[in-house]
Amino acid sequence: MKTVSIKASSSYEIKIGSRLFSTLGQEAAATVSGRNAVIVSDSNVFPLYGKKAEESLRNSGFHVFSFVFPAGESSKNGETYLRILNFLAQNQITRSDLLLALGGGVVGDLTGFAAATYLRGIAYIQLPTTVLAAVDSSVGGKTAIDLPAGKNLAGAFYQPRLVLCDTDTLSTLPAEIFRDGCAEIIKYAVLYDPGLFAHLAEKGLDFDRETVIARCVELKGNAVMQDEFDTGERMKLNLGHTLAHGIEHLSGFAVSHGRAVAMGMALISRAAAAAGFCPEETAREISRLIAMFGLPTETEYSACSLANAALSDKKRFGDVIRLILPRAIGNCIIYPLPVQQLHFFVEAGL
Amino acid sequence: MKTVSIKASSSYEIKIGSRLFSTLGQEAAATVSGRNAVIVSDSNVFPLYGKKAEESLRNSGFHVFSFVFPAGESSKNGETYLRILNFLAQNQITRSDLLLALGGGVVGDLTGFAAATYLRGIAYIQLPTTVLAAVDSSVGGKTAIDLPAGKNLAGAFYQPRLVLCDTDTLSTLPAEIFRDGCAEIIKYAVLYDPGLFAHLAEKGLDFDRETVIARCVELKGNAVMQDEFDTGERMKLNLGHTLAHGIEHLSGFAVSHGRAVAMGMALISRAAAAAGFCPEETAREISRLIAMFGLPTETEYSACSLANAALSDKKRFGDVIRLILPRAIGNCIIYPLPVQQLHFFVEAGL
Repeated sequence: MKTVSIKASSSYEIKIGSRLFSTLGQEAAATVSGRNAVIVSDSNVFPLYGKKAEESLRNSGFHVFSFVFPAGESSKNGETYLRILNFLAQNQITRSDLLLALGGGVVGDLTGFAAATYLRGIAYIQLPTTVLAAVDSSVGGKTAIDLPAGKNLAGAFYQPRLVLCDTDTLSTLPAEIFRDGCAEIIKYAVLYDPGLFAHLAEKGLDFDRETVIARCVELKGNAVMQDEFDTGERMKLNLGHTLAHGIEHLSGFAVSHGRAVAMGMALISRAAAAAGFCPEETAREISRLIAMFGLPTETEYSACSLANAALSDKKRFGDVIRLILPRAIGNCIIYPLPVQQLHFFVEAGL
Repeated sequence: MKTVSIKASSSYEIKIGSRLFSTLGQEAAATVSGRNAVIVSDSNVFPLYGKKAEESLRNSGFHVFSFVFPAGESSKNGETYLRILNFLAQNQITRSDLLLALGGGVVGDLTGFAAATYLRGIAYIQLPTTVLAAVDSSVGGKTAIDLPAGKNLAGAFYQPRLVLCDTDTLSTLPAEIFRDGCAEIIKYAVLYDPGLFAHLAEKGLDFDRETVIARCVELKGNAVMQDEFDTGERMKLNLGHTLAHGIEHLSGFAVSHGRAVAMGMALISRAAAAAGFCPEETAREISRLIAMFGLPTETEYSACSLANAALSDKKRFGDVIRLILPRAIGNCIIYPLPVQQLHFFVEAGL
């Protein structure tokens, strides 16, 4: 097992390793004084690990409630959020009780936002069951719901009390979901770590789970600790994401987040090379690694639709859009581009 | 004009005086860099001051959007909250733009919660138009929505950038709404200030608007600065409120917040006297002042229903409920009562 400590406005630990779910009850009992625990999960994950989590919590004296919603990004909306809040209120959950987010990014984002706002904030533990959630969503305290106009348009900054990443859960999930998460792992390598990039290029999908996830969590933790409220350094974590959100939106969310991020990274790297920010070879290396993980590097959408979709994204500040561009593997910059130029900039990367 | 400075996790000023709305545009322009302003208001207040506010903002170069919802506590729910978020997203409001809460407590709570969570937080200005909102809701950063199970069950701690309290708006509102707000003014006098209590007892409804509101804002500011996240001293601001929330709930919100607080304060003071926490005369003085403002001091509900309704309130922590009890005018204590005893405690005050 590896432990990474995150020091944000409130500090917490991320534990990564095998068979961690069996310790859940004890960890939960050490986290809160109340004895009600509410598991929030989705229809894919709950049948796999729900009973195990409930049992561990009951063995430590918790009264357990479970709220399960239909799996998928389309559930990450205001209606599911209000249903969770009503479920908590109806069961008279108090400020000393506990929420648990058992699942991937959608479960984590929704549960985190409910925890942040129910009674203006109650404790929650993240139990990520996907690579994406393990390396990304469970670190940094960004919780969110989607609105009809776009992804993650409402939410809160709110830290979990603990993250337990049981690596056994990662192997039982479908290959496609596993690959999806690898897009975020590649992102951390491109942003910060040539050594990690080399390890991934050497091992491909057989990379060392515990070590790589712990490293990504640590890298994200560093970015978040420098900039908890997302006004500077943390923006870099959006590498590939501005275009990815556009692609997801244009596809009506038929393209998964991981695949969209893969396309977005490949595209923005080629655009960066075309504009002289990095050598062509850097863009090619990034695309090769993405393809090695079975992820796409091309998109069917036009520069015009991508630019329009990206401009409805919330990272826009007034008249400029801040793009994250690679200069080399492990070194990226924040580049403010006038919004009128985005269309041309993107076109060069298609 | 009087100015009170609030030093919370983010600091801001509350300006109280006549004809302040005419300065709105200038103040707004000094607050944010964006040039979109969204006024959120209700169907009672917007027809009175909406045009004036829009005009002042337009004169300072803002593009103004207005979102008006049906007046009343029943609008303070998840659906209205999501409608506001969607309105902001559809109009592509960004993080550098501004929200304005024009109205009473319901408008302030809803707008504040939308501001706290849209894009994980954008700037907002409070423009309270009721005594209640001026002295209470606009200070302290507690934003909220009601859930079917109870009042204020979801929300966030989030500070406005500025509060402009134009005292002219207070005189144009119906007498009943004005009186309602006076219940909160009386609360501050009972909690902290025998001098304020004496001024109110002498002047009745003709109290000095600017001075009294500024004093209450200052007293609430002190409590909030000591305890922004509501774990200790700030709990005292719940004087009369635990029972008041119960009364509002039992009446299906037919009893207004101010009248419920008046009943709650009178009742808890009599109960405190009966249990020996303060002299009988203190409870009588409090009831006399409440009655002088045309507010009720008795409730028709039984001790049993009041206790049950109060116990569904979120201030409950496990097995004890924290009651705020007067020892004397200007001196109150937090008293943890086992929940089983609440029924008997309340009965003595009926």
